[in-house]
Amino acid sequence: MMELSDIRQAYDRIKDHIVKTPIMTSTTINGMTDCTVYIKCENFQRVGAFKFRGALNTVSQLTEEEKQKGVVAHSSGNHAQALALAARMLEVKATIVMPNNSPKVKVAATREYGAEIVFCENSTESRAAVASELVEKHGYTLIHPYNDHRIIAGAGTAALELIEEVGKLDYVFAPVGGGGLLSGTAITTKGLFPDSKVIGVEPQNADDAYRSFKANKIFPSEYPNTIADGLRTQLGQLTFEAIKKHVDEIILVSEQEIVDAMRLFWERMKLVVEPSGAVSLAGLLKKGKSLSGSIVGVIISGGNIDLTDFFDSYSKQIN
Amino acid sequence: MMELSDIRQAYDRIKDHIVKTPIMTSTTINGMTDCTVYIKCENFQRVGAFKFRGALNTVSQLTEEEKQKGVVAHSSGNHAQALALAARMLEVKATIVMPNNSPKVKVAATREYGAEIVFCENSTESRAAVASELVEKHGYTLIHPYNDHRIIAGAGTAALELIEEVGKLDYVFAPVGGGGLLSGTAITTKGLFPDSKVIGVEPQNADDAYRSFKANKIFPSEYPNTIADGLRTQLGQLTFEAIKKHVDEIILVSEQEIVDAMRLFWERMKLVVEPSGAVSLAGLLKKGKSLSGSIVGVIISGGNIDLTDFFDSYSKQIN
Repeated sequence: MMELSDIRQAYDRIKDHIVKTPIMTSTTINGMTDCTVYIKCENFQRVGAFKFRGALNTVSQLTEEEKQKGVVAHSSGNHAQALALAARMLEVKATIVMPNNSPKVKVAATREYGAEIVFCENSTESRAAVASELVEKHGYTLIHPYNDHRIIAGAGTAALELIEEVGKLDYVFAPVGGGGLLSGTAITTKGLFPDSKVIGVEPQNADDAYRSFKANKIFPSEYPNTIADGLRTQLGQLTFEAIKKHVDEIILVSEQEIVDAMRLFWERMKLVVEPSGAVSLAGLLKKGKSLSGSIVGVIISGGNIDLTDFFDSYSKQIN
Repeated sequence: MMELSDIRQAYDRIKDHIVKTPIMTSTTINGMTDCTVYIKCENFQRVGAFKFRGALNTVSQLTEEEKQKGVVAHSSGNHAQALALAARMLEVKATIVMPNNSPKVKVAATREYGAEIVFCENSTESRAAVASELVEKHGYTLIHPYNDHRIIAGAGTAALELIEEVGKLDYVFAPVGGGGLLSGTAITTKGLFPDSKVIGVEPQNADDAYRSFKANKIFPSEYPNTIADGLRTQLGQLTFEAIKKHVDEIILVSEQEIVDAMRLFWERMKLVVEPSGAVSLAGLLKKGKSLSGSIVGVIISGGNIDLTDFFDSYSKQIN
């Protein structure tokens, strides 16, 4: 079972290469919750998401032989870009398997970080099959986006920075999809202050972690239908174990509650936050003033959102 | 003529009530310019813009009698909200004159900060007339948005924080509309380091300051047609004098260059910046790599932008 010392070791490994992201506060949010809320802004992390922490921690622990052969992942999201950049920084070849209908902007960004892209059909089976083939053919190491001790330990370093900077938190809110960020956050938080409460927040329209936590067995994420595209995945065995052990509660938020939290970040705090990144605040706001007087940490997981349409309409205004 | 000591005094007056805004960096922007660029994020200031600094500095210097009677301004922009909040903090009544076609979101925000709104026709004459009437009738003190020593001194405190935190800058870029921010920035920068260069950046489609600076007389801003709505105003006598004395160059940027800079802030730095606020970066980028090796300051003036359409379309996706 992982513990705080694993997170600390990960931090020592990556700390010189990550952004120590700002912690921000908002009088509006403090007023709405009657709490003192510290917001850890991983949207300011390299590649725009906390995922870089875990990717770097993982690649840096590969053996020399593994490094020489290269890494592979199947992802069209933040894990792809995080792994691409982490690998490039350590001079390791990265190959990313992406569905052939992936948004061009994501393909371009991943390629920009130096990864080779291999396209596959848009199905879980095809992605896994193509990745396995590459592993077999080239000896690449497959890096899972969350069900990996090294990824979880890296993810936990965001909470470590947060709590070491502001002190003990009564509550910490983190989003849950595959569970990497929530696991790492919980291990860190409970390791530092066992009586702090850790709350996972999940979209109602992708509630597999909520149900798994209640039923004590992993449910698959079937037909997730949420704008929080980073949270459509199901728990892994490792993340499920950490969550069962360290998390106090998983709560659900509606799609509208996610949009409302996102809007608050953009309009009031001037922060570009992706839907998945706003889920933790949505969870805190759902609690209303019931945590009145508490010191609360909220983790923004990332800020990668396609703004092509928004800026295209802007450009049209001026032409 | 104003000098650095005026800025320092303003800072002592307001420092406990403003946000000491973060200074951010971007490897992307450093790479594009071959400079070390420090970005002062006044979009994180209270009310979302640097304007709060000057408003608070001004209201706090009113006499007891003036405070008891109240203040008035005509503005539908950031000055309105800044004055409303500054007045409320010092328990002074604020009245804001706004055109009757002002966006509802701006009216609501200004009212939320406790100001009384008085509507007028949408013309410069009507706004001034209605404000004068209120001054005469109630004895309110009219607070000009930029042509006022106290406003300029407050605006200059952003550059003071920036330079005191990061040290000497070879170049400082600030947007210019009425010239309050550029004046204050220039007085501060030259007061601290006389051989630093200060560059004002203005939309090509509202180039009155550029022409005034060249011709050595104030031109009115006729038919400004720029998305940078905060920069449509013309220079005042006080700001013109400070700019003539302390600013090295005023450069122009196109509407597309403003949108491109804005997009860079949003997409790469995850910062919500309004068009006027992105003009200073647009100016730096226009210089390409010609300042190679320099240490550069860029001031983001604010982040207030109407996101109603953006979030409405988001909400539609989920309903």
